[in-house]
Amino acid sequence: MTDSSDNHAPTGPLTRAGRSRRDVLKFGSAATLGAVLGGSALLGHAAPAPTPTGSAGLLAPNEPLDILIVNYDGGTLLDFAGPSEIFHRLPNTNVRYASLDGGNVTLEFGVVYGKTERLADIDKTDVILVPGGSDLSAPMRPAYQAQIRRLAERAKHVTSVCNGSLVLAATGVLEGKRSACHWAFVNKLAEYGAIPVPDRFVEDDNGRFMSGGGVTAGIDFALRVAAKLRGQPAAEYTQLVIEYDPAPPFHSGHPSDARPELVAMVDKKLPGASKGLARIPGVR
Amino acid sequence: MTDSSDNHAPTGPLTRAGRSRRDVLKFGSAATLGAVLGGSALLGHAAPAPTPTGSAGLLAPNEPLDILIVNYDGGTLLDFAGPSEIFHRLPNTNVRYASLDGGNVTLEFGVVYGKTERLADIDKTDVILVPGGSDLSAPMRPAYQAQIRRLAERAKHVTSVCNGSLVLAATGVLEGKRSACHWAFVNKLAEYGAIPVPDRFVEDDNGRFMSGGGVTAGIDFALRVAAKLRGQPAAEYTQLVIEYDPAPPFHSGHPSDARPELVAMVDKKLPGASKGLARIPGVR
Repeated sequence: MTDSSDNHAPTGPLTRAGRSRRDVLKFGSAATLGAVLGGSALLGHAAPAPTPTGSAGLLAPNEPLDILIVNYDGGTLLDFAGPSEIFHRLPNTNVRYASLDGGNVTLEFGVVYGKTERLADIDKTDVILVPGGSDLSAPMRPAYQAQIRRLAERAKHVTSVCNGSLVLAATGVLEGKRSACHWAFVNKLAEYGAIPVPDRFVEDDNGRFMSGGGVTAGIDFALRVAAKLRGQPAAEYTQLVIEYDPAPPFHSGHPSDARPELVAMVDKKLPGASKGLARIPGVR
Repeated sequence: MTDSSDNHAPTGPLTRAGRSRRDVLKFGSAATLGAVLGGSALLGHAAPAPTPTGSAGLLAPNEPLDILIVNYDGGTLLDFAGPSEIFHRLPNTNVRYASLDGGNVTLEFGVVYGKTERLADIDKTDVILVPGGSDLSAPMRPAYQAQIRRLAERAKHVTSVCNGSLVLAATGVLEGKRSACHWAFVNKLAEYGAIPVPDRFVEDDNGRFMSGGGVTAGIDFALRVAAKLRGQPAAEYTQLVIEYDPAPPFHSGHPSDARPELVAMVDKKLPGASKGLARIPGVR
């Protein structure tokens, strides 16, 4: 469906096949968006496709994009399920899952996530994503930390969701970098030399570092990453396909919005939460 | 942390241990919410705990609640990852996962979800949840349909997310019932005798039937189910813990909001989508 010659015609005459990528943004139509999004983004058979030059971020628009999601025992499913769902739908993108030993990992609540690769078997990745968890003991172990640090140092984009940023920060790669985190843990980032930012999405060094807040923030995070790396139309298309038109039934998604007695309840279970300094297994 | 005697003290004097569940709503404090939510809802070690009488729905407040998520090859991870994350955090709730043959299932994009039980080994469940997928061939097969129908007929609450409602409808249990579905498929419900409703959350028969729209609607759906079955404070607490304070970066989550050329793109990939009549493998 995508004419591959279109990928390399940035300044040609405005024939349908030869429109520049910038014109895709300017004249956006179903036909040109088709070129942007590739042949089968909806059902996941990603095909090479261009993205608008203006929003392609640090990657050249047509390069294949490898995204690695780091899994570990005690991780939280929803931290990476949103990003997984979004990234798999982007054109020319390969999403992989890996853990220290490979195979099945047992997430929070005993949820089993299967057939992960071994981190040591992965030479490099364009994007590394470290999701959070209710127990960070596993990814804070030296062997995990060494693999994450190795892959993060070589990655074009170092990213996290929820308290996965604490795992990244502990490796040292976030030294002096601004980062998001779940609200209950965000200020722990400073203990590892990173700069805590209490936002739902945080970016530093022009997108080399991108991070999301707690759990469900992974969806907003991933749409922003998608727009940066594959162009806004691809992100918007994905948002439409996953019907991300949220309608929370209550005002309780953040301490600034929730009833004080609910915040107090979290503080009771996780002392220090409302100060962003909750303790969690694996973190000093 | 929860004094079990509190569970059976609906009208006693207002000592701290003896406050009624109605008083929990009326006087809601950290201490009483603690009683409502049980000892360790945040980290998932669910403990028996009362819910406010006024919002307990069809279940008696203190009954254990079994929730069964139906898995199948071709299913969509994010359809049930939100509900999973929310339901696991509710007090006195047991979330199970099952497929026809048990073991690993291979979801959309090759994502492997592990260690599911066999549907035939499950006698009954209070809540059955059928998530959607990109290929419904598996759950539309007679053997799957028979198991889903058997469990749905005995369940107190019959629920779905995304086009999982088509799977339920095909079993006949939604005959004459109002149901939600992903926007691209919603009107297919009528072909199976259900009543299509293009909303993000739909309820019929006083909550015996509850359904969510496409993919991410599962989060809003699950918070509403949580409020109905375990009380609003438990739902609000869960919303706070998963930081569900959404901030979509684009206006593109629904055809009514998205740029027309993006809707046209979906129509191109899935003919009939904008009429709610997209075709999908497994559905006639």
